[in-house]
Amino acid sequence: MEFKIVKKDKDTQARLGVIFSPRGIIYTPCFFPVATRGVAKTLSSQDLLECEVKGILCNAWHLFLRPKVEIIKHFGGLHNFMGWSGLIITDSGGYQVFSLSTLKEIQDIGVSFQSPIDGEKFFLSPQKVIDIQLDLDADVILPLDECVGYPVSKEYALKSTKRTIRWARISKERFLEKCQDASKSLFCIIQGSVYQDVREFCQEELVKIEFDGYAVGGISVGEPQNLKYKMFRDSIRYIPQGKIRYLMGIGKPLDLLEAVSLGYDIFDCIIPTRFGRTGTALTWRGKVVIRNAQFSKEDEPLDSNCDCFVCRNYSRGYLRYLFNIEETLAMRLVSFHNVYFYVKFMEAIRESIKQDKFLEFKQRYQNLEF
Amino acid sequence: MEFKIVKKDKDTQARLGVIFSPRGIIYTPCFFPVATRGVAKTLSSQDLLECEVKGILCNAWHLFLRPKVEIIKHFGGLHNFMGWSGLIITDSGGYQVFSLSTLKEIQDIGVSFQSPIDGEKFFLSPQKVIDIQLDLDADVILPLDECVGYPVSKEYALKSTKRTIRWARISKERFLEKCQDASKSLFCIIQGSVYQDVREFCQEELVKIEFDGYAVGGISVGEPQNLKYKMFRDSIRYIPQGKIRYLMGIGKPLDLLEAVSLGYDIFDCIIPTRFGRTGTALTWRGKVVIRNAQFSKEDEPLDSNCDCFVCRNYSRGYLRYLFNIEETLAMRLVSFHNVYFYVKFMEAIRESIKQDKFLEFKQRYQNLEF
Repeated sequence: MEFKIVKKDKDTQARLGVIFSPRGIIYTPCFFPVATRGVAKTLSSQDLLECEVKGILCNAWHLFLRPKVEIIKHFGGLHNFMGWSGLIITDSGGYQVFSLSTLKEIQDIGVSFQSPIDGEKFFLSPQKVIDIQLDLDADVILPLDECVGYPVSKEYALKSTKRTIRWARISKERFLEKCQDASKSLFCIIQGSVYQDVREFCQEELVKIEFDGYAVGGISVGEPQNLKYKMFRDSIRYIPQGKIRYLMGIGKPLDLLEAVSLGYDIFDCIIPTRFGRTGTALTWRGKVVIRNAQFSKEDEPLDSNCDCFVCRNYSRGYLRYLFNIEETLAMRLVSFHNVYFYVKFMEAIRESIKQDKFLEFKQRYQNLEF
Repeated sequence: MEFKIVKKDKDTQARLGVIFSPRGIIYTPCFFPVATRGVAKTLSSQDLLECEVKGILCNAWHLFLRPKVEIIKHFGGLHNFMGWSGLIITDSGGYQVFSLSTLKEIQDIGVSFQSPIDGEKFFLSPQKVIDIQLDLDADVILPLDECVGYPVSKEYALKSTKRTIRWARISKERFLEKCQDASKSLFCIIQGSVYQDVREFCQEELVKIEFDGYAVGGISVGEPQNLKYKMFRDSIRYIPQGKIRYLMGIGKPLDLLEAVSLGYDIFDCIIPTRFGRTGTALTWRGKVVIRNAQFSKEDEPLDSNCDCFVCRNYSRGYLRYLFNIEETLAMRLVSFHNVYFYVKFMEAIRESIKQDKFLEFKQRYQNLEF
């Protein structure tokens, strides 16, 4: 998966790039919605296409537990299973092993845990996690990592990061050994909690191993808000310029502006779909909490600057009413709009870089309450 | 709203017709999905269009209680509110007053009831019910009727039917007085419980008053299955040939075949959407209960004879999985397929009448387990 930087911003570290992916050309910076279980909640794959989404993030751990890898393999992989022709990145599930499963035990050879669905016991090694993602037919694969919470001691952060690095090395060996398909890519995940030198050490070590792209994880896990942007900065300094930088699980539009200005290229986040399901729409004028009584007679669409099918066809008043009667269509419509908004927001970011106006764009939208 | 019979079947009472509706030409026999509260559950108005749905049935009583008529009037009527350009029939809500509200009292001048939402007390006269539907901007309006349950004495059935007839007369007077729009139609509702002579009396009296179309209500309210088709027959005998006959709330594909053979023209039913939400798909080979474990590895679409977007894109295995993880997309996808199936089923019925093969078609599909 070739990556080319087309232009660098004059004021910031932002860059305009092109990924020549096996599923088509993807311009960066870009945003991928989350489809953890092989579905972007409430949205069909056709909805995603209509939103001009180029890629999605699925989760190997969730799919491993249900419907099971053999089922998805039977269907010829995740693309076939969910009817999605765009790019698929699968998260290894490191984060989920640590946050969702019970009775977990971390050893250097892998992790043991119990399924939160039925209590079944599993052991996953870094090798097995690569095999799973190859079986799922993901386009971009991520190694098993340990994602520590907040707070964590520096001592443990370093120990855990060293394990993540070791697992990344093992993952690369396994990937080279098992993957027959030259179109597939292996990224790595940078960890290190809130500690600058640990995150920098992690980058240096992972860069030595060499990966197709560098993901940054372990941010927004409970640390104070004012550390977040510092973590963005501390996690990117030593990633080579020519490589894809992927900031995982981030974020609100303001976070995206900040991260783009630091040189990140791709993003995923549950915000557009999660906010959609609870009735918060993201718009070019800030967020709209559609359940509010003030909208009951509002003829305007969610966003008068938006041309998505929801904004072309439905008023805020109707959407508010649908939420009031607990109609699931409401969740789909606002999720659809939000995903479309994110896609268009990234498109506008790219356009501003192209026109040497990114900083202006960033300043214009950073006062929006999102 | 002009109605023309294009062809009569050679073997049965079935007829092929055309309705020149204010929202476009509608070929009959045809099926209208139910959008009780101004939404066909889980489906957008664009979904309905894509299913080639020509009309829907909304409910005046539900919309009167929420979001309230003034809200819908503010948005310029129900078509604008829900972004739907096809035909809208509004049921008066007679059935709902009797089945869903508490502390109801029926007098000759109208009905008193408490809202099941907040206990607020309301009185609705037949006149008021016409005004509500005009305010909602329905294309086809139905008078307030009393829908009796099962069992009911013949004495009460007759008394109640006389009231329904009286209300129909009052409704027509009100409609003529208040409706400025020549494109709107007023139908009436035939009642009479399981009693043949009461249903026939009702038809004769309503035909004397003259309506644009004749709806048949009060069937499938708990009576034994073997009385249902007799009620179909007893409710249509005296409706003039040239008039639209609308069988309300019916039914399964087999019921539609029977009713079409008796000369009914239009139908509505919650089955396609309700079955869709619980994971039962209707197909040309019978019903498919998609949650069943047997489908977990099935590559086939819901119906291999169907070209709806769901069948073109998704396997039974994926749909089963989506139901298993309680993903609302699953409900939409199966509802979409079911509505599409009903539309295509009616299209096939029309084609069979055209080709003098309706009886053959009816026999072919009446053994299907639906």
